[in-house]
Amino acid sequence: MAQQRILTHNEVKHHPKLILTQKGVAEIKSKLGNIPLFDTSLEEAKAEVDAEIRLGIEVPVPKDLSGGYTHERHKRNFLMMQKAGVLFQILEDDTYAIYVRDMLMAYAKLYPTLPIHPQERSYARGKLFWQALNDSNWLVYTSQAYDCIYDWLSKEDRDLLEKDLFRPFADYISIGNPQFFNRVHNHSTWGNVAVGMIALVMDDAELLDRALYGIKDDKLTAGMRDNDGGLIKKEGQKVGFYGNLDEPFSPDGYYTEGPYYQRYAMYPFLIFAQALENVKPELKIFEYKDGVLLKAVNALLNLTDADGDFFPINDAQKGMSYFSRELVTCVDIAYYYGGQNPELLDIAQKQNRVSLDDTGLSVAVAIKEEKAKPFVKKSIELRDGQMGDEGAIGILRSDDLELVFKYAAQGLSHGHYDKLSFSLYNAGQEVLQDYGLARYVNIEQKGGGNYLKENTTWAKQTIAHNTLVQNETSHFKGDYETGSQHHSEKYLFNVDDENLQVVSAIEENAYPGTKIQRTMALIKDENFENPFVLDIVKVNSATSNNYDLPFYYLGQLLQTNFKYETPKTLTQLGDSNGYQHLYKEGLGISDGNNTSFNWMLNNTFYTLTSVTSKGDELVLARIGANDPVFNLRREPAFIIRKKDKKDAIFISILETHGSYSPVSEFALNAYGQIKNIAVIHDDEDYTAIEITSKDDKKWWFVMANNNNNNSSNDGQHQLYINDTTVKWEGPFVFKPIN
Amino acid sequence: MAQQRILTHNEVKHHPKLILTQKGVAEIKSKLGNIPLFDTSLEEAKAEVDAEIRLGIEVPVPKDLSGGYTHERHKRNFLMMQKAGVLFQILEDDTYAIYVRDMLMAYAKLYPTLPIHPQERSYARGKLFWQALNDSNWLVYTSQAYDCIYDWLSKEDRDLLEKDLFRPFADYISIGNPQFFNRVHNHSTWGNVAVGMIALVMDDAELLDRALYGIKDDKLTAGMRDNDGGLIKKEGQKVGFYGNLDEPFSPDGYYTEGPYYQRYAMYPFLIFAQALENVKPELKIFEYKDGVLLKAVNALLNLTDADGDFFPINDAQKGMSYFSRELVTCVDIAYYYGGQNPELLDIAQKQNRVSLDDTGLSVAVAIKEEKAKPFVKKSIELRDGQMGDEGAIGILRSDDLELVFKYAAQGLSHGHYDKLSFSLYNAGQEVLQDYGLARYVNIEQKGGGNYLKENTTWAKQTIAHNTLVQNETSHFKGDYETGSQHHSEKYLFNVDDENLQVVSAIEENAYPGTKIQRTMALIKDENFENPFVLDIVKVNSATSNNYDLPFYYLGQLLQTNFKYETPKTLTQLGDSNGYQHLYKEGLGISDGNNTSFNWMLNNTFYTLTSVTSKGDELVLARIGANDPVFNLRREPAFIIRKKDKKDAIFISILETHGSYSPVSEFALNAYGQIKNIAVIHDDEDYTAIEITSKDDKKWWFVMANNNNNNSSNDGQHQLYINDTTVKWEGPFVFKPIN
Repeated sequence: MAQQRILTHNEVKHHPKLILTQKGVAEIKSKLGNIPLFDTSLEEAKAEVDAEIRLGIEVPVPKDLSGGYTHERHKRNFLMMQKAGVLFQILEDDTYAIYVRDMLMAYAKLYPTLPIHPQERSYARGKLFWQALNDSNWLVYTSQAYDCIYDWLSKEDRDLLEKDLFRPFADYISIGNPQFFNRVHNHSTWGNVAVGMIALVMDDAELLDRALYGIKDDKLTAGMRDNDGGLIKKEGQKVGFYGNLDEPFSPDGYYTEGPYYQRYAMYPFLIFAQALENVKPELKIFEYKDGVLLKAVNALLNLTDADGDFFPINDAQKGMSYFSRELVTCVDIAYYYGGQNPELLDIAQKQNRVSLDDTGLSVAVAIKEEKAKPFVKKSIELRDGQMGDEGAIGILRSDDLELVFKYAAQGLSHGHYDKLSFSLYNAGQEVLQDYGLARYVNIEQKGGGNYLKENTTWAKQTIAHNTLVQNETSHFKGDYETGSQHHSEKYLFNVDDENLQVVSAIEENAYPGTKIQRTMALIKDENFENPFVLDIVKVNSATSNNYDLPFYYLGQLLQTNFKYETPKTLTQLGDSNGYQHLYKEGLGISDGNNTSFNWMLNNTFYTLTSVTSKGDELVLARIGANDPVFNLRREPAFIIRKKDKKDAIFISILETHGSYSPVSEFALNAYGQIKNIAVIHDDEDYTAIEITSKDDKKWWFVMANNNNNNSSNDGQHQLYINDTTVKWEGPFVFKPIN
Repeated sequence: MAQQRILTHNEVKHHPKLILTQKGVAEIKSKLGNIPLFDTSLEEAKAEVDAEIRLGIEVPVPKDLSGGYTHERHKRNFLMMQKAGVLFQILEDDTYAIYVRDMLMAYAKLYPTLPIHPQERSYARGKLFWQALNDSNWLVYTSQAYDCIYDWLSKEDRDLLEKDLFRPFADYISIGNPQFFNRVHNHSTWGNVAVGMIALVMDDAELLDRALYGIKDDKLTAGMRDNDGGLIKKEGQKVGFYGNLDEPFSPDGYYTEGPYYQRYAMYPFLIFAQALENVKPELKIFEYKDGVLLKAVNALLNLTDADGDFFPINDAQKGMSYFSRELVTCVDIAYYYGGQNPELLDIAQKQNRVSLDDTGLSVAVAIKEEKAKPFVKKSIELRDGQMGDEGAIGILRSDDLELVFKYAAQGLSHGHYDKLSFSLYNAGQEVLQDYGLARYVNIEQKGGGNYLKENTTWAKQTIAHNTLVQNETSHFKGDYETGSQHHSEKYLFNVDDENLQVVSAIEENAYPGTKIQRTMALIKDENFENPFVLDIVKVNSATSNNYDLPFYYLGQLLQTNFKYETPKTLTQLGDSNGYQHLYKEGLGISDGNNTSFNWMLNNTFYTLTSVTSKGDELVLARIGANDPVFNLRREPAFIIRKKDKKDAIFISILETHGSYSPVSEFALNAYGQIKNIAVIHDDEDYTAIEITSKDDKKWWFVMANNNNNNSSNDGQHQLYINDTTVKWEGPFVFKPIN
């Protein structure tokens, strides 16, 4: 196709212009040596690149999957080129320009010879890498390197690079792979931005248009799927960079795939936004959709636990955190373009490095000037959906506890079937876990570092999560199209009273004919050592069903108040929908009293007390059945099973208490405080619970199930329970009654 | 019995005299406020005691097992009294004396009314606690408190306390329980010291004699056992404090029960030694047996990993470390009485507190004067046995790796049946674990915090350890008397070359008719990223047997080079001797090639490469079968099984390599370097191994099996292998051959 070089050189005359700017570089140079955090970040980059330069340039013929040598080498190359470009600009040392040029020339020599990558696993294979996605990563970083040495290169070299490398490269990942480029997906964002970045460097309006708005006629069939089962084309969908900005981001900045992929996508979103702001400031990209890109950074930081690790919502590898290089970029850009919020400096200090550009400099200067304030994570609701009306992630925080409740939309192709699931953290430690994904990213030994089949058969299934399963089937029967049409409905999210924070949501589509309402409260009361979790799952169905509610506790089981049998041989708990991956390690039958389950994790005690009915099954399970190459972690679960019921109510309280020291061997407060939980009223309109502590204090928690109105007119309630009339305002009340 | 008050008041006229002394207190007071570590330790003690005083004195009627309320309360009481006594002396504030007096009076009122403790589990029940052992703990600490307020008390009060409390208390734990007092066991040490401490305070020569030399005629039957199965009486055994000092300590200061119990016993040993040094300096207790008490502190510190945690040899709860209060006392006493070794100050700095006496003051002053030097843990052999001739614990250290090899004696009643077992640590992280004990000390929910039956059925059994099992039976058939008659024989321990450290030992009694020699080397070579472990287990038997060699790896299995089947249902691996607690999770059959087993733990990779013969079984196992109340940790093992062989040789190399970052998602050096290990010679006299790396470098390791002589006369060897004659000096050689 024809390459049009639009003459906009009058607007921006010199390179670098993309991320570094002439003005910015001058300012950096003037401050060099005086801004500790910037200086050390620069030294680290220099040490890393210098070591690579000593090793010499290697541009191998592509061969491997991720984790393999050629994959990791090409990945390292683009990261090093980007840094070398920056070092050249800041240090004015030709060594770095030469390194970038020589490597680019090696790529320009190799690229035209390359067939499609020999590994056939991807729906959109790259040339350097097994996925066009990774090729796009390469171009996003390499564009920056090229921009840095653009003016230093001869025109001949530039022409050669653009002709043999950059234009065909940009074309291949876009018009060569429309099924990859013209999607709403983090993959496409990378593709769009890759093309957009090189377009801005080369000043190519056609490529920029393609990047921003997608390919006009992609000839794709609606309903196509990728190799992970994700939908490729939806009729009438807006694509390109704007399409990817519009649809997956909610007005709160929540990205529907979840924080793990949001982190991954944020780098291209923000680095391209920075580039657009530098080169096309008239687009006012940071103001787009009410400043959604900056809100997204705030959302992302709030989607982390006390250690900065992202909550593993949907497909997510645990351990990814705001210490990732992407988040360094995010925080610095958000600080620079988002009104210099001093709380962001707190995160930047923890990250202990900054971007080597204007944004990083501004952060480092502000930190030197001691402007940082603590980044305080509060309880927060992050709405899902383009319009913010497709459910949400609700996070309750109280002291060291963080409760993450998911009542969101499907989350595109990385979504899990886990409506109304939750997880719980104590001081950054998972207590009730979300399993995350079944993948060892970039660890070649495990399926080339890619998604494992257990991601589908286990990790995405409903039973792999702390939420209700009906008749051993997953929500929406595990069908992506069906799931994508629905989302849970928020009922309320109320954190006005920090001692009584409540979130409640309703799911009516996961199992047609069944309505599930889950209410979770984090309650702080002086009679308890720590805030406790109150969990109410109310199910109403037109038909009789079996209901399972699992709790994936981590740690060592200490004691239960119920008897259970442990089988001589371990068999799988069920046949499909994830149940085939669970072993049945124990089975108890409720005698109708409360069930108490006490365990220890990292020298803290936990007790889960649950209302159970006579005959309810109490299953002790462990992950790992039908796992022929040990892809799954052998971790435990406690499952409460109610059989053959239309309506059911699951009520549990989770207490965090006490401590154990293996050094002093003292166990303090090893038992919970809850003596009993009783349902004292439950109908369509109201649910009332009585909680009794071991010192015989009593509380009632009463909830209006059909009126979430807070106002004094419409939110007035009264209910006659146990010879008493309770009156309250708003959808719930929690009160001591003796 | 008659109480004799010997008039030795001319020698030592005033209290305190036991741990604190008049002179010491004066010096402490003169320095107060100027020695930071002492001052903060004092403040901590004050804050703790002040809080307890505010709560008021509680001396409940004894009722509970450990972990229960009355147990923990009485334990806290004696710890608080001891501290309050010290605070009274140093701060001259009567509040603390009153607190001690009032609490002692409460005990004096209660004690005469007490029956034997209602919990019947112990072979020697106490009155305040379920074991006389805990009663002894109480008296060891309380004696110190009494000494501190002795002069402050009225004579009437002293008389009352001694008549109603201290003398009957001392009699009950000694002549009232000879089966507890007259033993060689850490229990008895506590009993002896308890009686000795109060004897010194009350100046009672008869009690002191009883403490030092035991009860003259205990009327015990030889062969009696305690509730943990331990032998109580051995004919002609020396008992009392000296008996307990003579027999269990080796000349290197290794205590035969292992470091966990050594830590527990060291407090009474050393605190009583300090008291004897103060009151009876003519005994020269710190010089006894060539200074064994001071050597014992050094041994104990060397029996810790990089984090200061004790290696869990024999019965031992993991997590116990040199941060325990006992070790604070040990380190301070060893510094003060042991020649002011500046390396001990390094440990004291890490402990960040000191004893509130002369010894702690001297440590704190020296730290203030910046005399501390790093405590460098080197490879060390700690001989076992009273004469140092009953095997040893050999510890090899190289870079971050620590290999702990056990070829010691049985270790009294807390010993495990694990001759020639080993464990491996990397930077304080267990890689190949020793399971430790099956007990949750003081966690009442788990069997009252006491030993669980799985300690006998699992933790003590041979299969629970990284060592050879013959025919699924434990060493010595798991018989304590038989095990106690034997020990492994050291063959060599050679760490002269820090790049080639080798330890080798022989066991001929665990399975009569079978000789096992295990040689372990820690080899550092520039061709490997980290030092690697070479493990050679050579078995020769008169009969055909099945041999199992387990490796209790921790972490996530990534890849094996052999095929294995995973069963649909999990069944136990065997019927008894611990095998009933293992599930068989997978089974492969060797094709005769090397077996490679690759896993990841805490973002580091490990690869175990083993020589296997065609038909060898490769078992993937997991702990947890027949564990009806979840007392065991569900952790994995890899077991190499050779069937129906008289002679066998197991050879493995364990490599530590690479890293993974869940933040950058980079996997570096995820595979080991070993391509092949081959046995190129093996007979009674010599074993030779060829190691080939992936870049085709080759090394030979050759070992003389019947001559551990190092001298140039008797240690000259030559062997013709693969058309080459190898000549070397000493029992082994490791050399590159290309």
